Amino acid sequence: MDTAAHRIDKLVIVGVGLIGGSFALAQKAAGATGTIIGVGRGRINLEEAANLGIIDRFIPLSGEWTGELATTDMVLVAAPVAQYPALFRAMAPHLGPHTIVTDAGSTKQDVIAAARAALDDALPRFVPAHPIAGTEQSGAAAAFSTLYVDRNVVLTPLPETDPLAVATVAAAWRACGAHIRTLDAAAHDHVFAAVSHLPHLLAFALVDELAARPDAEELFRFAASGFRDFTRIAASSAEMWRDISLANRDALLAEIVAYRAQLDRLAAMLTAGDGAGLEAVFAAARTARRSWDSRRNAAGGRVPDDGPRDP
Amino acid sequence: MDTAAHRIDKLVIVGVGLIGGSFALAQKAAGATGTIIGVGRGRINLEEAANLGIIDRFIPLSGEWTGELATTDMVLVAAPVAQYPALFRAMAPHLGPHTIVTDAGSTKQDVIAAARAALDDALPRFVPAHPIAGTEQSGAAAAFSTLYVDRNVVLTPLPETDPLAVATVAAAWRACGAHIRTLDAAAHDHVFAAVSHLPHLLAFALVDELAARPDAEELFRFAASGFRDFTRIAASSAEMWRDISLANRDALLAEIVAYRAQLDRLAAMLTAGDGAGLEAVFAAARTARRSWDSRRNAAGGRVPDDGPRDP
Repeated sequence: MDTAAHRIDKLVIVGVGLIGGSFALAQKAAGATGTIIGVGRGRINLEEAANLGIIDRFIPLSGEWTGELATTDMVLVAAPVAQYPALFRAMAPHLGPHTIVTDAGSTKQDVIAAARAALDDALPRFVPAHPIAGTEQSGAAAAFSTLYVDRNVVLTPLPETDPLAVATVAAAWRACGAHIRTLDAAAHDHVFAAVSHLPHLLAFALVDELAARPDAEELFRFAASGFRDFTRIAASSAEMWRDISLANRDALLAEIVAYRAQLDRLAAMLTAGDGAGLEAVFAAARTARRSWDSRRNAAGGRVPDDGPRDP
Repeated sequence: MDTAAHRIDKLVIVGVGLIGGSFALAQKAAGATGTIIGVGRGRINLEEAANLGIIDRFIPLSGEWTGELATTDMVLVAAPVAQYPALFRAMAPHLGPHTIVTDAGSTKQDVIAAARAALDDALPRFVPAHPIAGTEQSGAAAAFSTLYVDRNVVLTPLPETDPLAVATVAAAWRACGAHIRTLDAAAHDHVFAAVSHLPHLLAFALVDELAARPDAEELFRFAASGFRDFTRIAASSAEMWRDISLANRDALLAEIVAYRAQLDRLAAMLTAGDGAGLEAVFAAARTARRSWDSRRNAAGGRVPDDGPRDP
């Protein structure tokens, strides 16, 4: 299906941070695109992106960036998701007849709703996407060309999405080294509420709670590698995670309720001195975590591509 | 103070797992001890430890291991903490007049209570210790000689502990590359409930809760590096963490209560659509986490030694 994909001669990336910047670097490394134009809120970040060779030129979001769109093959929106409705509204009247729009947002139902509300005739050329990659860093300076190698990109196309647009976006991500999977948008948001959004919220919650204590300095002084790994994601962008939390609010609240019930269960076991109960929970978690790790390692640290689906 | 320390010609390690085994390997690498005898529950693990050159010989826990103690310079107890009372009772009548007893337990008040109840005249030669190092692996095969390099070991000596015994234990850990810090046992248990025991319980709780769902396989299929790091500690020994949780029950329950209140606060913000409130919590966590990381990196990934105390 890749053979049918459009070539991307002109790419506009709205939001040249870790995600958008790494996509640009990977495209350049693969020789897969022509000109890359960066669009964003912060001039300093855009200048840094240009100086680092991530983008060929840039236009601030406050400038005439939509004037580029008529001749653009693909627009990648990689900004915090709360900005999508305004971005889609701004770009809709200016998109060329073949311009493909895609995104890198961590939530999909809200992004699709924003696209439906704004993109009109261009909606079939909108391909909702979520690269399952990132670090706790942000900004163009954090970008690197191999971020997506052997990572998964989940596409959540709509019933009306043009298959050729999907193929083009899939080919662009494959050129970055990524593997493509497809999910329904609601299923996507449910899955990532559990395995990504909740863990982020839990990590932020812990670090904020400890940092607010009078003896925070003493506590952090003795924190070691377990704490380091558990809280790595609490160094992530606050704005990005505010937007994700609100965008996926219902699914995330359901996850918090389930998690609280589990925590209450463990606290009750602890209060009762129920060592067998605690050990059973810990052992089940240990087995599941080790099994996940083994399968992950067997798959080269990733979940297999949708093409050859794993058995 | 190290110059006054005893030389360790004969070392007995009770529990030759990741912690005890790595201590043995580090001692051997440093040429700091003579004979190392392993004692433990599982013959297969002991045989593996001997085959790997971790220990010179072994005696199963069901065998006549206490017969070695009269001529032993140091006994390191590195078993799950629930076993300490029985171990201390078994060894007490057989300890030589100069045998130093130390441990590697993650909780200290319960270990000290067990020592007080059993060690009698040997109590001044008991040095409670907690190496702040480990991985999610367990067993002798997981041991490696550099586990303690630039890691901290917290000593929580009693008022009656012999300073020469403290110096000997400190010297043994320094020979492993570790740095020594000293804390009151209650302060130790409070600090580690917050920065270690709670995160472990939270990670176990999440993985068990997800693993028990009908769609667990689909969830784990999409879990990525954030989930990997957040849940790494959920692959730790269930028995060890059952014991730690129960041994430090009151402090851990207090941490769960505080954490639940924080989680309720975040859920209320989410329900109310309070983006500013969420962002403030996430930003405070992000700042604290980044600041901790910077200080940690500046200190070479560790907290400085008690000797030259950090300012």
